[in-house]
Amino acid sequence: MKIDLSFTSSSLEELQLRSKNIVVIDVLRASTTVTVALANGAREVIPVGSIESAVKISGPLFGEMTLRGGERNGRMIEGFNLGNSPPEYTEATVRGKSIIYCTTNGSVAMFKSRFARSLIIGSFVNLGAVAKYLGEKNEDFMILCAGRLNTIGQFSLEDAVCAGMMIQRLGSDGAVALELTDASRAAVALYKSYGRSLLKLLKTCEHGQFLTEIGFGEDLKVCAAVDSVPVLPQLSGTVIKLRKDEQRPEPGDTGIAPKTVDS
Amino acid sequence: MKIDLSFTSSSLEELQLRSKNIVVIDVLRASTTVTVALANGAREVIPVGSIESAVKISGPLFGEMTLRGGERNGRMIEGFNLGNSPPEYTEATVRGKSIIYCTTNGSVAMFKSRFARSLIIGSFVNLGAVAKYLGEKNEDFMILCAGRLNTIGQFSLEDAVCAGMMIQRLGSDGAVALELTDASRAAVALYKSYGRSLLKLLKTCEHGQFLTEIGFGEDLKVCAAVDSVPVLPQLSGTVIKLRKDEQRPEPGDTGIAPKTVDS
Repeated sequence: MKIDLSFTSSSLEELQLRSKNIVVIDVLRASTTVTVALANGAREVIPVGSIESAVKISGPLFGEMTLRGGERNGRMIEGFNLGNSPPEYTEATVRGKSIIYCTTNGSVAMFKSRFARSLIIGSFVNLGAVAKYLGEKNEDFMILCAGRLNTIGQFSLEDAVCAGMMIQRLGSDGAVALELTDASRAAVALYKSYGRSLLKLLKTCEHGQFLTEIGFGEDLKVCAAVDSVPVLPQLSGTVIKLRKDEQRPEPGDTGIAPKTVDS
Repeated sequence: MKIDLSFTSSSLEELQLRSKNIVVIDVLRASTTVTVALANGAREVIPVGSIESAVKISGPLFGEMTLRGGERNGRMIEGFNLGNSPPEYTEATVRGKSIIYCTTNGSVAMFKSRFARSLIIGSFVNLGAVAKYLGEKNEDFMILCAGRLNTIGQFSLEDAVCAGMMIQRLGSDGAVALELTDASRAAVALYKSYGRSLLKLLKTCEHGQFLTEIGFGEDLKVCAAVDSVPVLPQLSGTVIKLRKDEQRPEPGDTGIAPKTVDS
């Protein structure tokens, strides 16, 4: 199984991704938020590439079965219902709703992958579920780290470390032989360097520092909680839903309250 | 001193680089080749972005004081005088000559940096000279890894490790305080993971494997020889020359024959 990886998404063209099995990783915070939203019963997440698209798509249904979620500069967009903080996406808020989702990096990478052969959303909170799925599927795939579009180089250390941990987990039972590229080898090495304390990693990486500065420091604990939300968000048509064999809890269940880690 | 880094060059715009001090790294092989060529007395290297540009620029003078060098798919371009193998750039061949230089990745990154505040060409063979210069200059800079344009993700492990070693060397005497970004932190971690045997790294990385397959395995030994060509290629106007305070050897000197490493 060959594992390719891109540390950034901006240089890739949609049609380059068309024949590929893709895992989009945006630890802080899009992948985590989408995973939490679907685990809490959201009907679907519809990633878009721009605020204009979000407004256009959600127009007639807005406010009833449809919510707008996302961020610019880390904060909720004017006229939206939700920001990009995983704890906002509670069962009470999102159950049964379609979420039009627009963020600076993550939703753009997801949107760009909408013609892919398959698309999974990965993060620390569902890392084991993703690795298990990829191992069973046993096909070549590519990890697309969302990165940071507004930064020189666009590299996000936390996404790279999450990718490396996913590859390491996938290879750990020895059941599948992994063929790694330069980038996927690098991700594994970065996981080995930085994986010992994920919360420390999230606190010290550039985007984590920014989120702390603007008041979202608590989100880092949610985003660092490995395997706390073990579900599999997957592209289905043009929207992201939980994988079919995963039953969403029935209305009335408590849903998943995000777990956190403290070290 | 803040050190930023981009693992790929394609997503950056020329004007983003305008105000920056840039170090372009393309270990296999453009940075190494340019360094060897200038150390062996080439008058200047003129990086271009396309074969068409190379032909246009070198037209009237071609074959006298001007040589065309570079590669496509690793091999010499039809109608060129030189490929991209450092040992081709001997003193007998290049002394006093202007070299119009066109490669898939490295020359493009250099060309893109032609409006930068300053531009240095770095590789393992001149790593110490570059680190010494950057330490004395003591200004923020950005490392631009050329990467591989025709690869998904465009990441080259050997360029990342060289960047990390350069940063590590720069910080090792403690004279300057370094401020690292996510990407430059990652490069240092990758150097620590892979820096123990650079030749092994070059033999196992994707581009090194490709070069070995097409018959350039010996070049890897040249490219892995740390500090073997201790000169500083620098942008001067629109061309690359040795730094002014470095005297090129007089005609009749033996020039630098590339050293190699065997492990």
